Amino acid sequence: MDPMTYTRVDGRAADQLRPVTITRNWLDHAEGSVLVEFGRTRVLIAASVTQGVPRWRQGSGLGWVTSEYAMLPRATHTRGDRESIKGRVGGRTHEISRLIGRSLRAVIDHKALGENTIVLDCDVLQADGGTRTAAITGAYVALADAVDWLRGRDALKGEPLINSVAAVSVGIVEGTPLLDLAYVEDSAAEVDLNVVTTGDGRFVEVQGTAEGQPFDRAVLDALLDLGVKGAADLTALQRQALAR
Amino acid sequence: MDPMTYTRVDGRAADQLRPVTITRNWLDHAEGSVLVEFGRTRVLIAASVTQGVPRWRQGSGLGWVTSEYAMLPRATHTRGDRESIKGRVGGRTHEISRLIGRSLRAVIDHKALGENTIVLDCDVLQADGGTRTAAITGAYVALADAVDWLRGRDALKGEPLINSVAAVSVGIVEGTPLLDLAYVEDSAAEVDLNVVTTGDGRFVEVQGTAEGQPFDRAVLDALLDLGVKGAADLTALQRQALAR
Amino acid sequence: MDPMTYTRVDGRAADQLRPVTITRNWLDHAEGSVLVEFGRTRVLIAASVTQGVPRWRQGSGLGWVTSEYAMLPRATHTRGDRESIKGRVGGRTHEISRLIGRSLRAVIDHKALGENTIVLDCDVLQADGGTRTAAITGAYVALADAVDWLRGRDALKGEPLINSVAAVSVGIVEGTPLLDLAYVEDSAAEVDLNVVTTGDGRFVEVQGTAEGQPFDRAVLDALLDLGVKGAADLTALQRQALAR
Amino acid sequence: MDPMTYTRVDGRAADQLRPVTITRNWLDHAEGSVLVEFGRTRVLIAASVTQGVPRWRQGSGLGWVTSEYAMLPRATHTRGDRESIKGRVGGRTHEISRLIGRSLRAVIDHKALGENTIVLDCDVLQADGGTRTAAITGAYVALADAVDWLRGRDALKGEPLINSVAAVSVGIVEGTPLLDLAYVEDSAAEVDLNVVTTGDGRFVEVQGTAEGQPFDRAVLDALLDLGVKGAADLTALQRQALAR
Amino acid sequence: MDPMTYTRVDGRAADQLRPVTITRNWLDHAEGSVLVEFGRTRVLIAASVTQGVPRWRQGSGLGWVTSEYAMLPRATHTRGDRESIKGRVGGRTHEISRLIGRSLRAVIDHKALGENTIVLDCDVLQADGGTRTAAITGAYVALADAVDWLRGRDALKGEPLINSVAAVSVGIVEGTPLLDLAYVEDSAAEVDLNVVTTGDGRFVEVQGTAEGQPFDRAVLDALLDLGVKGAADLTALQRQALAR
Amino acid sequence: MDPMTYTRVDGRAADQLRPVTITRNWLDHAEGSVLVEFGRTRVLIAASVTQGVPRWRQGSGLGWVTSEYAMLPRATHTRGDRESIKGRVGGRTHEISRLIGRSLRAVIDHKALGENTIVLDCDVLQADGGTRTAAITGAYVALADAVDWLRGRDALKGEPLINSVAAVSVGIVEGTPLLDLAYVEDSAAEVDLNVVTTGDGRFVEVQGTAEGQPFDRAVLDALLDLGVKGAADLTALQRQALAR
Repeated sequence: MDPMTYTRVDGRAADQLRPVTITRNWLDHAEGSVLVEFGRTRVLIAASVTQGVPRWRQGSGLGWVTSEYAMLPRATHTRGDRESIKGRVGGRTHEISRLIGRSLRAVIDHKALGENTIVLDCDVLQADGGTRTAAITGAYVALADAVDWLRGRDALKGEPLINSVAAVSVGIVEGTPLLDLAYVEDSAAEVDLNVVTTGDGRFVEVQGTAEGQPFDRAVLDALLDLGVKGAADLTALQRQALAR
Repeated sequence: MDPMTYTRVDGRAADQLRPVTITRNWLDHAEGSVLVEFGRTRVLIAASVTQGVPRWRQGSGLGWVTSEYAMLPRATHTRGDRESIKGRVGGRTHEISRLIGRSLRAVIDHKALGENTIVLDCDVLQADGGTRTAAITGAYVALADAVDWLRGRDALKGEPLINSVAAVSVGIVEGTPLLDLAYVEDSAAEVDLNVVTTGDGRFVEVQGTAEGQPFDRAVLDALLDLGVKGAADLTALQRQALAR
Repeated sequence: MDPMTYTRVDGRAADQLRPVTITRNWLDHAEGSVLVEFGRTRVLIAASVTQGVPRWRQGSGLGWVTSEYAMLPRATHTRGDRESIKGRVGGRTHEISRLIGRSLRAVIDHKALGENTIVLDCDVLQADGGTRTAAITGAYVALADAVDWLRGRDALKGEPLINSVAAVSVGIVEGTPLLDLAYVEDSAAEVDLNVVTTGDGRFVEVQGTAEGQPFDRAVLDALLDLGVKGAADLTALQRQALAR
Repeated sequence: MDPMTYTRVDGRAADQLRPVTITRNWLDHAEGSVLVEFGRTRVLIAASVTQGVPRWRQGSGLGWVTSEYAMLPRATHTRGDRESIKGRVGGRTHEISRLIGRSLRAVIDHKALGENTIVLDCDVLQADGGTRTAAITGAYVALADAVDWLRGRDALKGEPLINSVAAVSVGIVEGTPLLDLAYVEDSAAEVDLNVVTTGDGRFVEVQGTAEGQPFDRAVLDALLDLGVKGAADLTALQRQALAR
Repeated sequence: MDPMTYTRVDGRAADQLRPVTITRNWLDHAEGSVLVEFGRTRVLIAASVTQGVPRWRQGSGLGWVTSEYAMLPRATHTRGDRESIKGRVGGRTHEISRLIGRSLRAVIDHKALGENTIVLDCDVLQADGGTRTAAITGAYVALADAVDWLRGRDALKGEPLINSVAAVSVGIVEGTPLLDLAYVEDSAAEVDLNVVTTGDGRFVEVQGTAEGQPFDRAVLDALLDLGVKGAADLTALQRQALAR
Repeated sequence: MDPMTYTRVDGRAADQLRPVTITRNWLDHAEGSVLVEFGRTRVLIAASVTQGVPRWRQGSGLGWVTSEYAMLPRATHTRGDRESIKGRVGGRTHEISRLIGRSLRAVIDHKALGENTIVLDCDVLQADGGTRTAAITGAYVALADAVDWLRGRDALKGEPLINSVAAVSVGIVEGTPLLDLAYVEDSAAEVDLNVVTTGDGRFVEVQGTAEGQPFDRAVLDALLDLGVKGAADLTALQRQALAR
């Protein structure tokens, strides 16, 4: 478990992110939009603002932030069938959509948002591992732009963004903890952990899964350390993107 | 965060499970079946064995274990619509079904199982918090009985059960870490963590979510400690149930 | 066709019910609930009360009683696929749900119920023949408890229960009319008749089907006699259950 | 309950059928087809023959006869939504499709049919009460023609039609037993009974429902007598149609 | 490409329609109805009038005309599965429904119609080529009758029918331009063009498709000429039908 | 109708295309891929090659080319619901998918393709009018690259690409024929025509619709001239893209 000796497929250090780019305003119509790339993983995110909230929340004075995640059929190595044609959304899609939504809501003051809804559509144009963490990381930036759009229209009741949020995957491959797994690494991982943190390094979500062997507390601790470090790197990149 | 001072709704200690009962062979037809109760939460689990495996696994020599989770419409305080009538399975259902399946597969030697499939149907008859953790804990026992059924028919290639698996929820309520949250506690929790461990105390799955404030590493550590403790208690109860 | 000479699988007399148990308040949340058992057939019934009625009945001053029937996947000898996952409700499910609803509405004074809705969810936990008749028989008891719950809240406009209702299956096996068929008998039956009667012995529903040969009037008469007798026995058991 | 004194909407006697026409070969492509009219109720039936049987019946040497029933959207007084657009088949449609299929199979020797499938599509072009009984009555004639078509191709193993089958509705309106109810009569009926009989007057299916008050044995007996009489009249009309 | 030398399957001239019959009031309930026949192609059309318009159009003062097209399962040579049972409407059905709706709306003054909706259900009872053009041609007549029905109730704001509309198919078979293709001709066509025109010969819709070779402008011009001629013939037949 | 006097929203000449860019190999996994832009309309196309053909074509020796078209939810000015979540594919989506597939198959020699399938997924990332014509134009280039990929693997039976294919929209706005309509122009168009031509200027598909007034032959001729001109311009751009 010596990160010094393991050689990654793309030559990265064990604790190094892939090249990350966050391109704002990739779309012309959306109130916020980002094309986020973690290496060859490419996710297009559109933030759509609408006045009002879903029926079950009307009259509460609270806003609503939610997310839908999907993959284009040929985002992956082999083509997958469209969920629209199958007529049903798969379990993985559901699970990731819910994770993204929860993660973003964790940094939102719904009262300050007022009765406005922001939907974050995260569509994976190309997948090479880490699509959900790229989606969360990019969606935060698109959300910030959408909030800014609302601010410009005096449609807020305060400052709804109480923190930033970023996410990264970590895992154990051949005994070595690695940051930001590419698809081939993810396939080989014995343990897989997604860490979602706020800009000040606290946890929003921790999801760890034994893919092969169950893992002990020492492994979990090492992965958490690495995840917190990677998420902090992404937080810095989000700040740079928003500063441009 | 002094567990001594917090009074739980049912008078339990902060680190105490609800009364747990595991009733084996509750059904006459299934190869394994369990009615598991965590307090007022009641989940009926049926293990169904079929010869052969899904098409994508045929010829591999490997078995398959999977799970489907669902709630009866009036398991909850107010009636929910049936997913069969809505014509689609919801995200929460998908997510929990997948979690149960992964958790059970973590303790299965698929080669030893041979090309047999075991489906664990986990139907929540009554919900009072912790349905997914009760389902995993009970499903392991039903799975063990189904494996035993296969063993009795000389249909195995070895010993497929390489470990036991149990699950419990922990959470922070009013700053206090609590074990095995009932519904009212779960609704009030600031942080919610599900821990799935093997019988020897290693992690299979860790899923922590900030419901209110993001949480720091100290909180996560306290919750992990409590979860490991609770899962160990459940492991002991599983052993007793299987010894009867 | 001499009932004296035919030996039933469980030693019952031809005109004898299986052991019937009606357990009230099996659930904690529902306004009425029953676990009804006809031998190994086990149906869990939850009566859910909601204020108001479906849109097409609003403003009429009339209440509404309806039912949904379903089977758990492993209620039967071999596992069936979930209708939620198939994305559609099957014809048999539809047919039985409608039968239960009609049977219960036959003993309801909708004006006295006021604009309240009672849904009877009948979920078959284990099936061994006669699931629809057990469901109707048990659902009446759950309905009576739900009506009582409304009465306790002064939410009624009068006495909505104008009668009781019970149901039983009868059939011809090897020329012999048998009461309350178990699954193996049902599979072998040449004629199959479900009789739904009120507490005073009048018919609410009569559904007879030739499974093998068409049947003549004498056979139909014999089956109706037997069905009326069996339903009367069930009426007595319902009364005892409600008296407890 | 004196049939002498009740005046029907169209002046018929209480025990009189509406004008019935059975037009064979209404379609050019189908192996058997019938446009059947019971007064203003008009059902188009197509019998489609295919070689082979559904997978679950392959290799049994037995044939298969099944039916699908549906209504055009404007068959009724007010337009109904299409089930294709709703994406699901309703309970009533399911129930009637199943009834028609069972009724036809009751007069089929599946061995003599050989491994051939006949599907009877019964599409209601206009509805004025009694669509299911018209469908069964007409479908028998289309089935006979389809069997004839198979006979002409030497594709049978014997004579598959062991009897004829016809169906009629009867009901109690204002205390009077009436034969072959039109829609306005059906809406006003206190009791509604569908009788399906073979050509020699035995029962294939009996389905009686109390729409208002529960009914006693004397009423049931009167309705059964009337239904048997009406079905015999229809049997005669089927014979004439097939003789043309 | 000499229309003189090509012999059609039914002996028609290249520029001759099949025998066309337009039977009005084929149904008793609908506000307008037509059975239209182009040779063996038979489409039943029901025009249903309802007060009010879809939600997105409410308050506009404008009416709405729309259409749904479908085929009975055995309209064709071999039986097709029902879209209601498949649970989804196919692409061809969608495409044709939309074409019919657009074609009819082209001759409607929605203001004069007032906030009324007319739905044209076009159900193909038998298909032998040209079902969409028969549907449009017949639907116009049913629409005219439905408008007349509204006029008789003083429910209009003016004259909503600003023109008539008719449609015909033309195609190139073995180099020869043919009018109103039957199924066997359609299957053999190299180019297929549907022309929808108003009563004064202007175009509402032109849809040409190369089935085999791409086609040049001269072919397109020849087909357009033929289509305009055929649509004019149909316009005359519509007028005769409406004059009866 | 003097093209000289009409001023377009972006200052283009009436017969001028928007800036068109065709970026090949935008994706890493697909056998062919193109990001095509017609002004602000942006469509991502992935060509996926699989060995073998759909079941109904197996053993024919012929290949198969098909297409699926979809829009991301926020491709448009206001967000649309996902078809995967609605559980059904809309009519417009179906119609365009079929058009793209037919257009591409018109330039394919299926025998030379051998029993291989190429699926063209056309996903609209941003919509500003002309998405279907951009999709066809770009899909041809992706198809050419996929064919090239097959050629490089010696998996072809000959040269499957017998021609190129391009598509463009034309329409009448305020009496003026305009080429390649942007969304605002399309919304204002009285007549709308999509022209699909081969590289040598012959027609594959012509679809013209009167949005407001019906149109006469002179208008149709003017639009066809303009469409042929625009498609020829696009053919040249396709050639340049493939030459790079």
